[in-house]
Order: sequence, then C-alpha cells, then structure tokens
Amino acid sequence: MLTSHTAEPEVFPAIVENRAARGRMVMVCEHASNTFPALWGDLGLNGGQRQAHIAWDPGAIGVARGLAQRLDAVLVYAPVSRLIYDCNRAPDQAGAMPAQSEVHDIPGNTGLSTDARAARTASVYGPFHAGLHAEIARRIALGFAPVMVTVHSFTPVYFGVRRDVEFGVIHDADDRFARAIVAAAQARTGLVSALNAPYSAADDVTHTLRLQATPYGLPNAMLEIRNDLIATPAAEDAMAELLAPVLSAALAAASATQTALAG
Amino acid sequence: MLTSHTAEPEVFPAIVENRAARGRMVMVCEHASNTFPALWGDLGLNGGQRQAHIAWDPGAIGVARGLAQRLDAVLVYAPVSRLIYDCNRAPDQAGAMPAQSEVHDIPGNTGLSTDARAARTASVYGPFHAGLHAEIARRIALGFAPVMVTVHSFTPVYFGVRRDVEFGVIHDADDRFARAIVAAAQARTGLVSALNAPYSAADDVTHTLRLQATPYGLPNAMLEIRNDLIATPAAEDAMAELLAPVLSAALAAASATQTALAG
Repeated sequence: MLTSHTAEPEVFPAIVENRAARGRMVMVCEHASNTFPALWGDLGLNGGQRQAHIAWDPGAIGVARGLAQRLDAVLVYAPVSRLIYDCNRAPDQAGAMPAQSEVHDIPGNTGLSTDARAARTASVYGPFHAGLHAEIARRIALGFAPVMVTVHSFTPVYFGVRRDVEFGVIHDADDRFARAIVAAAQARTGLVSALNAPYSAADDVTHTLRLQATPYGLPNAMLEIRNDLIATPAAEDAMAELLAPVLSAALAAASATQTALAG
Repeated sequence: MLTSHTAEPEVFPAIVENRAARGRMVMVCEHASNTFPALWGDLGLNGGQRQAHIAWDPGAIGVARGLAQRLDAVLVYAPVSRLIYDCNRAPDQAGAMPAQSEVHDIPGNTGLSTDARAARTASVYGPFHAGLHAEIARRIALGFAPVMVTVHSFTPVYFGVRRDVEFGVIHDADDRFARAIVAAAQARTGLVSALNAPYSAADDVTHTLRLQATPYGLPNAMLEIRNDLIATPAAEDAMAELLAPVLSAALAAASATQTALAG
C-alpha cells in the first residue's frame, strides 16, 4: 500500500533560499506550506480545511522571507503541510501526524500504522532536518556564529476563545534572546507582545530549537504572529519591515549584555 | 583547489548495519575508521601515524559490531578518519579538524581556511549525522524507544602518562544510564570501571549524545575501552561478550528505577 516502502521513498527536502547570506540569523519556517503531495492525498480534508491554520501557518513564510531579505539571512522552510508531518514535532509526539487539530478530525491521520508513521518520517521530517542541519553546520564552519529564529503564525480564535496577544516570542532552555526580542518589540512597536504566548515550550512546540540550536549553543527564539495581521502580501511585508529592526536590536542588546551570545 | 567546491561535493555517508534489528539499543561508532579518502590525501602523516589512535579508535568498531549482534541493535558508524573530520565534534570545536593530536602535528590540518572547513563539514559531518538522525527518527516512529550507546577506545598511555582505568562510561546531561552501566560493570566484570574517565563531558567529547539523544530524551551513554584490551579480533569479540550483558542489565536496572527511562 505504501509506495514509500519501495527501495527509494519519495522525499521532500528542506528548501533553502538566500544561501549566500552573510548575516548571523537563520530564519526557519516549519509550517510554510499547505501543499498535500499526491503520495498522501488530501487526508480526507475539504478545500477550506486545507487552507486553514490547521494545515499551515498562513502568512508565516511571507514574513520569514521579508525578514531574511532585510537581515541578510538564510531562509530554510518545509515544503509540505504540517498535517502530513509537522516538522516541529518529534516522531513520537502526538502532533507530528495529528488525528485531530483544534476542532477538526483529520481522517487520513486516524489509526496510522507505525510503518506509515515511519514512512512519513523518512519522507518529510528526516530530509527537512537534514537540510536545516547541513545549513547550520555550514554556517558554523564558516564562522558566521548563527542565530536561529523560527517564524510561525497563530489563529486569532482558538477553540472559540479570542487571543489578544499579537506577537509572541517563545523560548526553550535559553531564554536570553527571546526576552530581548520582547523588550525590543515593546519599545519599538505598538504590537501587543508577550513572552511565551499564546503557548510555551511546556506545550512541546520548541522541537526545532532543541534539535538544531541548543546542541550548538546558538541563540534562538520562536516567533508567533497573529495571522489576521499578516493576511495579505502587503501585510506580510509590513510586518517584516516592523520586526527586522526589532530582531537586530534584540541581538545587539543580548550580545552586549551576555558575552555568551556575542559569538 | 577544493574539488568539493564544485556543484556536487563528494560525500561520505554514515554506514548502517543490522538495520532490521528490533532491540532498543543504537550502537554508534564515530571513530570506526582510519580511512583517508583521496580527496584529502594522507594529511602529511606517515603510515604509523595513520594506524595510531590519533586517526581512529582501534578496536572500537569490532566491539560495537559484536555488541550490535548480541543485543539485536542497529549499528551506525562513520567511514572516514577522525583526522579528516571528527564526527563527535561540532564544526567550531578545535578537535573537529585538529592541527595537533596528542603529540603529533597534523600538517594537512594546519591553517585550514573556513571554506576548507565548511567543505569537510559538508562531506563528512553532515552526511554522518543525517544518516544517524534518520535511523534514530525511524526507530522512534516505529515505537522502538531507542537507547543510544556510542563506542570508543582510548590509548593506554597519553602524553606519557599510564591510564589505569580499563572501561570508562561518560554521560552528558542525563547521567542515569551511564551510572547504571558502571554499576553493572563493577558487579559483573573484573574490568577497572569508572564514571567519566578517562575524561568527561567537560572535555567536549559528548557532541553526538547532545545532538542526537538529548533532544529526544533518549537514554544514552558513551563507552570508552582501553585499546590494549581489544587489540585483536578475538579480543574485540571477547569484550563484546563481556559487555553485552552489562548493557542489558544496566538498561533493565535503569528502566526499573527510573520511569523516564522505561520508554
């Protein structure tokens, strides 16, 4: 049944843009795409569901690309919907291939066999993290002292509850860069900004940071932008214009006060 | 000058043996090989140096293979000398491509450019860790609850000083499995066994554990065997025969007393 069980499974590598960038930041977007490859079909979802926040983070890739351009940063993103495999989850996390997302059942993810889970892991998760890891390792070897920023968006209403926060910054073990970003956003923008909102590492949302930044001691943070603020290409670009100096100021501030962040 | 700067760099993937294994343990051997690929030549070393402990961990792959067979474990190892790239080091660690190892100068590693460092990183380090990561992710997805054991050997005399320890077990952030292994070795063998000897995580020797086990919460430990005890194929096999029940007992003991280790 699984074509991916033949000798050569179809793989969906990480996409890398702006690889020649010489800035410190590495922009990452695990939920960039709502593409459902033919290999797995539409998982039983309708068109509206495949456009909704359960399938991807609307607007996130536009903001990430705008930030990469302004910060001379490389951009690495996943080319497949998070409902096929959520690259910000380990293979044994429930959210990796969820059978339910918010109020929606995901029929194509119900009762997945371990072989099917392993096949998706090999086709999507492995290649994404191999590509991101290769880029991180390359930039460390080149002496760029990388800083990891993952870019996400969140829905304004979740399980029927309105979320007032507009810009959240989430940290894992090392909170320094995240705290500096919140401080810079509060000083420089009118965004309602908060640390560890609308959720936190306790909700198991910092897998990429743990896997790709922490082992190398790289400064890192996860950005969450309310998606109604980035609902058009123009709004995405305006958000990137607003946040680029926030990230630059935060890195400068963190580097000035924390020698461990300086390089 | 660097052929690896052409469009397709030559790569040296991780070698995976016993992939169909169904046991929990994943045996890893970063210093399995003293192969010097033509791409980089002999780094200016003589034949004796290329056979010595500076180039690889003599005996380690034989012990690792013997353990894998006895424990129904997969085995993942690097196919290139640690002097080309030491896969147990991050690209910015001095030991990744050392210009000196113990008392030996490594001419081919002296004054390496950042481009040359990045090329070796892309050819050896990246592919090794991508292959190991793919195997770890696959086994997590399959529900095998992997346990990582890296297998090393050390020289009996280092900088002229005799080392009395015969079997060392080194841990990183999570010390539980390592402590259980030392206890089992002391109870079941005559080996002079010690925790964090002949060195420890403070010496930056636990990169693979940090990168591949810690982010997933996998039980993990690094084994160090004095190489005069595993100097022949028969001695390697005898050591595997001695240590296999030590690892099994340690995992059982750790799992019984630490629910977090149970899977």
